[in-house]
Amino acid sequence: MAHREAVIGKLVVIGVGLIGGSFALALKARNAVREVVGIGRTQPNLDDALRRGIVDRALPLESAWTHELPNADVVLFATPVGELDRLFAAAAAHFGPHTIVSDAGSTKQDVIAASRAHLGAVISRFVPAHPIAGTEHTGAKAASATLFRDRKVVLTPTPETDPGATQRVRELWQCTGATVRELDAANHDRVFAAVSHLPHVLAFALVDELAAREDARTFFDYAASGFRDFTRIAAGSPEMWRDIAVANRDALLQEIASYRERLEAIARMIDTNDASGLHATFSRASKARRDWDAGREANVPADGPRDP
Amino acid sequence: MAHREAVIGKLVVIGVGLIGGSFALALKARNAVREVVGIGRTQPNLDDALRRGIVDRALPLESAWTHELPNADVVLFATPVGELDRLFAAAAAHFGPHTIVSDAGSTKQDVIAASRAHLGAVISRFVPAHPIAGTEHTGAKAASATLFRDRKVVLTPTPETDPGATQRVRELWQCTGATVRELDAANHDRVFAAVSHLPHVLAFALVDELAAREDARTFFDYAASGFRDFTRIAAGSPEMWRDIAVANRDALLQEIASYRERLEAIARMIDTNDASGLHATFSRASKARRDWDAGREANVPADGPRDP
Repeated sequence: MAHREAVIGKLVVIGVGLIGGSFALALKARNAVREVVGIGRTQPNLDDALRRGIVDRALPLESAWTHELPNADVVLFATPVGELDRLFAAAAAHFGPHTIVSDAGSTKQDVIAASRAHLGAVISRFVPAHPIAGTEHTGAKAASATLFRDRKVVLTPTPETDPGATQRVRELWQCTGATVRELDAANHDRVFAAVSHLPHVLAFALVDELAAREDARTFFDYAASGFRDFTRIAAGSPEMWRDIAVANRDALLQEIASYRERLEAIARMIDTNDASGLHATFSRASKARRDWDAGREANVPADGPRDP
Repeated sequence: MAHREAVIGKLVVIGVGLIGGSFALALKARNAVREVVGIGRTQPNLDDALRRGIVDRALPLESAWTHELPNADVVLFATPVGELDRLFAAAAAHFGPHTIVSDAGSTKQDVIAASRAHLGAVISRFVPAHPIAGTEHTGAKAASATLFRDRKVVLTPTPETDPGATQRVRELWQCTGATVRELDAANHDRVFAAVSHLPHVLAFALVDELAAREDARTFFDYAASGFRDFTRIAAGSPEMWRDIAVANRDALLQEIASYRERLEAIARMIDTNDASGLHATFSRASKARRDWDAGREANVPADGPRDP
């Protein structure tokens, strides 16, 4: 085995779902970790994780799982963000003196607040992280060693974070094939409210509105491929998205407000038969979307912002 | 060649884009048509259609194209719906005594109104139709003989429509591999406002709102696969969607209003930290979306409407 900076002994993954499970699988595939211990809520999912070789040992959250922390090199919290406050409080006193702690939450300011509330001196070894990957599938059975390949992982270290800890977490994520970026936590939450959390809310709203109708069957019956793609994210985990909506409340509400303003402007154009206004709006959107697709290789859209 | 009811001599396709081109290709692939004449706006697209064997002859709209109509067995209008009023008016006097006329518009009440305004006695041989297929790609170069395979085509015959004409158009679409359904035009427009036109407006609104920002690049830079699928339909033809929004104004405005109500309810839940309300909403949506996916084979969602 070639020398590799990121090789670690013991990894503890709390929440062995799609993200936590894929992280463990990816490191195992690279021989970058010696032992993985999985902690989780439900026994069937832990059984899946054991059977698939994602974890070497598995403990339910009802057990004395914090006994696994003192000799852990890295502990990754990969549960819905709403669980982190309670889990940080339970774990804080048990980390070893060199244990590096990270998370995989989709929101970062709330996770940082929870870490400040509970982690004490461990805060310097806590590296807030958000892997930008996921599917509508959940659980250890959906985990894959290649999930993070060519995906982005955003680290949002705070003033308290030790740069050495950040570097260690960066190397682990690079080991999974991901590209690692850094953002300020507030900026992270603002950006993902717009490009991820808002679209999820919009898709949930559409499907829920249709499903509530008396004649829902007729509507779903004629829904086709455009609807399928538009609503794919509405099949996501209700618990995870509830937690995200609550955790990123302010940024998300601001995005919903901006969006409603834009939608109302389009509704007015339709109402007043403003065909040229509609054409201009749809053209700008269509061009921006096509440019984004074309520029995804370079991760930059081909054109800059348009004049308002 | 085996006997086949749908075999026709001359087909004229007005608008040789994705839909019109695919219709011609599909019939040619089944040897169901002897000659296809394409009429279109732009020479490069007509050249594509000729080069790909979609049409045997091509004429621009500036030519004396109506001379092709008297001996046509079937004439398909497959342009954006906003063009149909003008094209019906230009064509009305030129159809042969047995020519069957159809369209492929995404809205039906407006097309029927245009047919009543212009087609005179030909109205009995006009069969309003809407093939539920399409991609974000446009033009003859995107056309495919298999586009309609296992897709739905909705016919919305009116009291004036001769049942024999409807049957003929039904057989042609069946020849392309599509499943043919019939709906009342008003019901058609209501259903597609909800499951197609509204999602398109929502996706256009999101991309336009983001693209208008000073720091649009940062947002697009972090947008990932959920955003990609959600906004795929925003790459669609601005002209086509402008025409649809204008043509289906009333039904679409009603759908936007219902949607905004639902979105506002969710925003209130976020604002008031109503985690259980959010969980209930997202759970209903997620279940309905998963059931829809599971039930697509039978074209019926696994569960009925929920109680309000």
